[in-house]
Amino acid sequence: MFDLIQLGQQAKKSAQQLALLSTTRKNELLELMARALLTNKDDILAANQKDLNNARQNGISEVMQDRLRLTGQRVDAMAYGIRQVIQLADPIGEVEKMWKNTDGLLIGRQKVPLGVIGIIYESRPNVTTDAASLCFKTGNAVILRGGKEAFYSNQILVRVLQNALTTAGVCENAIQFVADTSHDVANQMMRLTEYLDVLIPRGGASLIQRVKETATVPVIETGTGNNHIYIDKDAQLEMAINITDNAKTQRPSVCNAAETLLIHEDVAAEFLPKIATKLAEHKVEFHADEKAIVYLPDAIAATKEDWSTEYLDYIMAVKVVASIEEAIAHINRYNTKHSEAIITDNYFASQKFLKEVDAAAVYVNASTRFTDGFVFGFGAEIGISTQKLHARGPMGLEELTSTKYIIYGDGQIRE
Amino acid sequence: MFDLIQLGQQAKKSAQQLALLSTTRKNELLELMARALLTNKDDILAANQKDLNNARQNGISEVMQDRLRLTGQRVDAMAYGIRQVIQLADPIGEVEKMWKNTDGLLIGRQKVPLGVIGIIYESRPNVTTDAASLCFKTGNAVILRGGKEAFYSNQILVRVLQNALTTAGVCENAIQFVADTSHDVANQMMRLTEYLDVLIPRGGASLIQRVKETATVPVIETGTGNNHIYIDKDAQLEMAINITDNAKTQRPSVCNAAETLLIHEDVAAEFLPKIATKLAEHKVEFHADEKAIVYLPDAIAATKEDWSTEYLDYIMAVKVVASIEEAIAHINRYNTKHSEAIITDNYFASQKFLKEVDAAAVYVNASTRFTDGFVFGFGAEIGISTQKLHARGPMGLEELTSTKYIIYGDGQIRE
Repeated sequence: MFDLIQLGQQAKKSAQQLALLSTTRKNELLELMARALLTNKDDILAANQKDLNNARQNGISEVMQDRLRLTGQRVDAMAYGIRQVIQLADPIGEVEKMWKNTDGLLIGRQKVPLGVIGIIYESRPNVTTDAASLCFKTGNAVILRGGKEAFYSNQILVRVLQNALTTAGVCENAIQFVADTSHDVANQMMRLTEYLDVLIPRGGASLIQRVKETATVPVIETGTGNNHIYIDKDAQLEMAINITDNAKTQRPSVCNAAETLLIHEDVAAEFLPKIATKLAEHKVEFHADEKAIVYLPDAIAATKEDWSTEYLDYIMAVKVVASIEEAIAHINRYNTKHSEAIITDNYFASQKFLKEVDAAAVYVNASTRFTDGFVFGFGAEIGISTQKLHARGPMGLEELTSTKYIIYGDGQIRE
Repeated sequence: MFDLIQLGQQAKKSAQQLALLSTTRKNELLELMARALLTNKDDILAANQKDLNNARQNGISEVMQDRLRLTGQRVDAMAYGIRQVIQLADPIGEVEKMWKNTDGLLIGRQKVPLGVIGIIYESRPNVTTDAASLCFKTGNAVILRGGKEAFYSNQILVRVLQNALTTAGVCENAIQFVADTSHDVANQMMRLTEYLDVLIPRGGASLIQRVKETATVPVIETGTGNNHIYIDKDAQLEMAINITDNAKTQRPSVCNAAETLLIHEDVAAEFLPKIATKLAEHKVEFHADEKAIVYLPDAIAATKEDWSTEYLDYIMAVKVVASIEEAIAHINRYNTKHSEAIITDNYFASQKFLKEVDAAAVYVNASTRFTDGFVFGFGAEIGISTQKLHARGPMGLEELTSTKYIIYGDGQIRE
């Protein structure tokens, strides 16, 4: 079996060195990594071709093949991504606050790296360089376990980054690769408490569920978004149409897309046919409850499963509600705590929705599609947390840090 | 088997109501709880007597019986503790920062409750009222599972608090009690991911270990402190003696007490005999390595286990080191990431220690005993986190919160 323990030991040791590097040094090394990607482009594309050939042989869909595919341009984009990380402010070392306590101790809370971060992810190879560079910038060692579809691509990408570090003679083991994509090794990784300070799974609902049931390492849950648009009785028609269309169809395969439309009964008759007409441009299929289906003759009757389903496709569940209270109760029961939006002109409805809906991001009169680290202005994103501990919502560099108290005394003892 | 699911469902529902209460309302309810403790003092003491009788029959030590014992004064102190929590600022609702992004969205990060907090704890009944009031103040429902030694005490304390809420007709299920102290039910609680947002274990190393191996609920690890005092070659003799004495003997049974003394070889011959003389006042037993034992004739030879042991007693491991590097390496290998101190007059030694030692609290020239929420000025403490995720070091009210993004738009869609 693959030796995760050795990887863990190496990463832990490397993390101690990495935590002491200056920002300038870390940026120099990141620049070496970016250059190495460009220098080794041919080898990277050759390895990616192996993955693509396997994908074709295994009958993987065209959409998935496209997610997997690297081109010269996409490798350039990876290098550009690393250079963007170089530009970001380094949070490590910042003393968030410092005060003198009643004993005369000067107590400061300082940002420090988390230590060793494990990432289990699926399909897209650019996650490899994104995650590696964000972890490196924040002084964290990382252990990467990608999906089997992108095995050869991920392997060479990590090797290229590692070689850049080895050539520089610094923190060779800061970026580690799990060269085994079996479930057994993934499960072992989820329980590697001795070496991993945190585990971040990035993938679909089944991966997240497996991590939830298996992991004893502290986890930051990410990604699944069963998101709702609630159209209040006081909504503007055109805004309701535009936002629903954007949230559902602008990029349906991502976690901040909307999956269910809730609409107040007072406006259902007027709004639903018009929304249907707009979404028909993308051939959206509606799964509607008995009240909504009256206005959506082409819809399929919704079953209970629809309320919990993250379609990630041109499909939308639709339900007519009698009140904002019913909408909020439905959302809090079925959502995955990701992104939720209300469309309304009513002040009290907007405040109520913001207060009572339990989710990482709650919107008034805007599309759920904005939940994103770049859009929020963090300059980067390692994922979107849907849990309440440590980080919630889009995670940038700040969310990859921990803190420690540094305390300056002059001989104090406790009485 | 005890029905944890029902408890979880009730707590989850109650948490939704509790999250919406104003600070004034929460404070009124806390005051009712404080009064209820005073009104029901006789019943509380009678239940505690049952626990004490059982403890005596089971041959529990006098020290442990004292931890378990309630008196009129101790119940007064519990009520006083709740009134102190009333005085603390309520973090819930605070918008930490708010900004306009490039799309014109106004994005605010707001503090919200975690939801439902599970606490598994041992022996002292005052943890029941402390934890319940801190969770309540921060709008969190709590499920309390205390140790079997304090079963009747904990049960009546929770009942008294619950009755205060029931009488007021608000959030009756915000404080829940697990009336089953079996390991099976505790293990089930550690995996109650559907209902618990976080689990905080408070207890000894074996409990923490069990939680680490079993829990799939997000955990905040607390408590174990294998802490070190490192006496540098440039330390002042008197300060070194006072701080070592304080850290070891002022209250040896708590997690911020020191367990191992590391001393630079240049000052071992002069300092160790004098420290030994001082600590002899408390009959401290030394477990010394071969270099230290030369200066500590009454010491026992240390074994490898000593470096990892949290004695919580008048015992101290002693090791002579050749350099600050050796001291730091020893600490980072064996510590539990709790509290560490260096005694030195040397500027560079102090900076190096602060930078390289991996722990929640790192001290220069002060006793480790200061790691405490009250001492740090937080006004309260639910425990001391020794993990890196979410909270590190003493946890006050702030650490019992999560965040959510509230976003004000005016029709924005993503291009």
